[in-house]
Amino acid sequence: MNSYSVKELLSENLLLQEVTINGWVKTFRSNRFIALNDGSTINNIQCVVDFESFDEDVLKQVNTGAAIKITGTLVESQGKGQKVEIQVSNLTIHGGADPETYPIQPKKHSLEFLREKAHLRIRTNTFAAIMRVRSALSFGIHQYFQQNGFNYFHAPIITGSDAEGAGEMFKVSTLDSKKPPLTEDGDINYKEDFFGKETNLTVSGQLEAETYAMALGKVYTFGPTFRAENSNTSRHLAEFWMIEPEMAFFDLNDNMDLAEDFIKNVIKYVLENCKDDLEFLEKRLLDEEKTKPQAERSEMPLIEKLKFVSENSFKRVTYTEAIDILRNSKPNKKKKFQYPINEWGADLQSEHERFLVEKHFKCPVILFDYPAKIKAFYMRLNEDGKTVRAMDILFPGIGEIVGGSQREERLDVLKEKMAALGIDEEELWWYLDLRKFGSAVHSGFGLGFERLVLFATGMGNIRDVIPFPRTPQNAEF
Amino acid sequence: MNSYSVKELLSENLLLQEVTINGWVKTFRSNRFIALNDGSTINNIQCVVDFESFDEDVLKQVNTGAAIKITGTLVESQGKGQKVEIQVSNLTIHGGADPETYPIQPKKHSLEFLREKAHLRIRTNTFAAIMRVRSALSFGIHQYFQQNGFNYFHAPIITGSDAEGAGEMFKVSTLDSKKPPLTEDGDINYKEDFFGKETNLTVSGQLEAETYAMALGKVYTFGPTFRAENSNTSRHLAEFWMIEPEMAFFDLNDNMDLAEDFIKNVIKYVLENCKDDLEFLEKRLLDEEKTKPQAERSEMPLIEKLKFVSENSFKRVTYTEAIDILRNSKPNKKKKFQYPINEWGADLQSEHERFLVEKHFKCPVILFDYPAKIKAFYMRLNEDGKTVRAMDILFPGIGEIVGGSQREERLDVLKEKMAALGIDEEELWWYLDLRKFGSAVHSGFGLGFERLVLFATGMGNIRDVIPFPRTPQNAEF
Repeated sequence: MNSYSVKELLSENLLLQEVTINGWVKTFRSNRFIALNDGSTINNIQCVVDFESFDEDVLKQVNTGAAIKITGTLVESQGKGQKVEIQVSNLTIHGGADPETYPIQPKKHSLEFLREKAHLRIRTNTFAAIMRVRSALSFGIHQYFQQNGFNYFHAPIITGSDAEGAGEMFKVSTLDSKKPPLTEDGDINYKEDFFGKETNLTVSGQLEAETYAMALGKVYTFGPTFRAENSNTSRHLAEFWMIEPEMAFFDLNDNMDLAEDFIKNVIKYVLENCKDDLEFLEKRLLDEEKTKPQAERSEMPLIEKLKFVSENSFKRVTYTEAIDILRNSKPNKKKKFQYPINEWGADLQSEHERFLVEKHFKCPVILFDYPAKIKAFYMRLNEDGKTVRAMDILFPGIGEIVGGSQREERLDVLKEKMAALGIDEEELWWYLDLRKFGSAVHSGFGLGFERLVLFATGMGNIRDVIPFPRTPQNAEF
Repeated sequence: MNSYSVKELLSENLLLQEVTINGWVKTFRSNRFIALNDGSTINNIQCVVDFESFDEDVLKQVNTGAAIKITGTLVESQGKGQKVEIQVSNLTIHGGADPETYPIQPKKHSLEFLREKAHLRIRTNTFAAIMRVRSALSFGIHQYFQQNGFNYFHAPIITGSDAEGAGEMFKVSTLDSKKPPLTEDGDINYKEDFFGKETNLTVSGQLEAETYAMALGKVYTFGPTFRAENSNTSRHLAEFWMIEPEMAFFDLNDNMDLAEDFIKNVIKYVLENCKDDLEFLEKRLLDEEKTKPQAERSEMPLIEKLKFVSENSFKRVTYTEAIDILRNSKPNKKKKFQYPINEWGADLQSEHERFLVEKHFKCPVILFDYPAKIKAFYMRLNEDGKTVRAMDILFPGIGEIVGGSQREERLDVLKEKMAALGIDEEELWWYLDLRKFGSAVHSGFGLGFERLVLFATGMGNIRDVIPFPRTPQNAEF
């Protein structure tokens, strides 16, 4: 007699076999039908008990959330809604779940309520589906890169460098916070700290990934990154996971080609591997949006949207073209933008990105060749002397999902840029070394993993697509 | 005309085709033979230039480390050592590498020297091979779990809980270190810190992974973990990557079966996918050990050792049996152990683990059923009341590579354990919830990723198997 997962019982041909299964009770109705789930799939297996053959005290413990073990025969189901079911011959309680105190009852709970119970919300269908999709997306990402000749590079999390300037950083220390050692000048003496210097949590592994790309050719990171920014929005986390591929000998066009191919393939991977979960999430979204005015509802159901993105070309537009489109757009002329677009050089706001993606092009958009002034120091200056080889990928409903660039490979130009921005060369001596020895055209991008999960699951708040979200004032669990 | 990787040129049938390739010069001899590498494989492609057809100033820049682009025809090689080579028709310099200042010259560099140049050491054959094996091991791990029904769980890195007690922690904060806000009592007011409480870097994702296992069934973490311990050894890092599977309805035997099967499969994965790199690393190790006395050399060459581990059963021994073996062992009787084994209950030291693995059993060993007193609070108490269902896997040359246990699923027993150790129930209310609602037998283990990379590559120092090691007084790059 073998132990199976619900997924195996529902998908393999095991009819008339005696099977054992462990799982948690979803519902128990008519003292007869147990819907049992073990996390292997969104679907439950129906287990039919003849209540007269079982101890009443045992059946009383078969409540929503209880962990039980069932043995029985797998048979064709007579009822609607399932092909097979288990005729239960034996039932053991691993651990009960008192209906008076167990918070996850078979009814609708708000996402806000469930956020307070982040250790139990995974027991709901919605969160189990999200987290299985998240896991599949992760693997799809690794598989894509490994099949395409990339090496996984583990960027350091604790960093002694704070020159990247991607955002505010968290300090990491083992010094006594109340009585830190001081220097003669009264400053904190970081020489006595664990690493002998000030250290922070990384905001990006890009600069370090470049060192590896300039030897292994193609590498990618997939790890946690941190921003100590007080942004309490539905799109920001203080701790999030990021994927940062970096490729030697890739120019900006190669970079855009890769990013588009990568995203499409990863989405195809979940379409192929998470069908049941995506169908559930699609239905959830439809239900949620029923209460919204038509204009705020999604244009396409979830799966159609994912197929659309994976099958259609992203629109590539220069920043300069985008400014023209925006300047001549209805909302700009009618002064509907909070930040009117008057001239070249303006930084694009979320309202502009959404207009381009959702109203104008109605598809994912890659904007490239941005003004140098609004982009990072390491991006390659174009021959025009005023734009850089940067690109952002904008997604409907999400906004920026990828930011990347060709990197400045010329030592003299990079040094000028750093001097102009007051970045100390000694701080980045190793980064400059890459331009001194065997320098070459190279490129890369960063993809915020949780934004991709948001997009793939149709969820609206980034706190709901990571197991234990870290946000201002919240590091519970 | 297509651009290829060296790996493709060496393995695919492209004879007589015109090809383009980018890479870095390994050597240039006789003004004629360029050994070119692009990181895709340990092997170089030989590029043959007719120096009379090329500009002297260009050829002068073809130094070790220079990045170049070559176009030419792939032909059968006349020389020994390679099957194919490129007859170069065009050669462009991306970026030179001045032999006077470029540190990575084609000669033997000590590992210590290279640690100071962690941004360039990846350009050596040794480190490129190690890091490709590291990448393949990572993917082998993900693939194993995904194929076996596990979901990848991203454990939080910043944690508000410090109850796990696996080691000293790093503090994470955004408070002004010099003038932190104080409470009325003169303590630091962490309510004003970013998360509104004291936070640290995680030492283990296990407790959080348990919350997900108790809903999804089988999950695994693969992420960075941290120990603020002042251990300057060849086996410890302050920042390292850990894999922590956690499985509902698994007892200790299931756990040991999984851990053994997992390690064997992951090692098979690299044996199949990293043949060239492993052969190189095997030779490197043989060379290194030539200078050592016979007794200190490895018993088997690297690849034979990996095959041996992947094909033979690990020996399973209870702690009690191990103590008997050690007590009666020659080194114990001859007082050769630094810590003599006199009685049951003693914690095993590295010297004892090495004796069991390397001298007594001569294979990987799983020790289980340890005394409760020397193990963590969450491990399941056996019926004898004095041992817990813990297991450690010990590897030759490495020592402990896996530590795991069946978890205490009984609320009352767990509470007693916590009380005895002074662990606050309020601190772990969510962990206790798992025992209140739908509790069940469950198990898991942790594998230190870098120790596995050490084992698979035959390297001796853990600083050499992670790109940018973090150790006391060292967070460079």
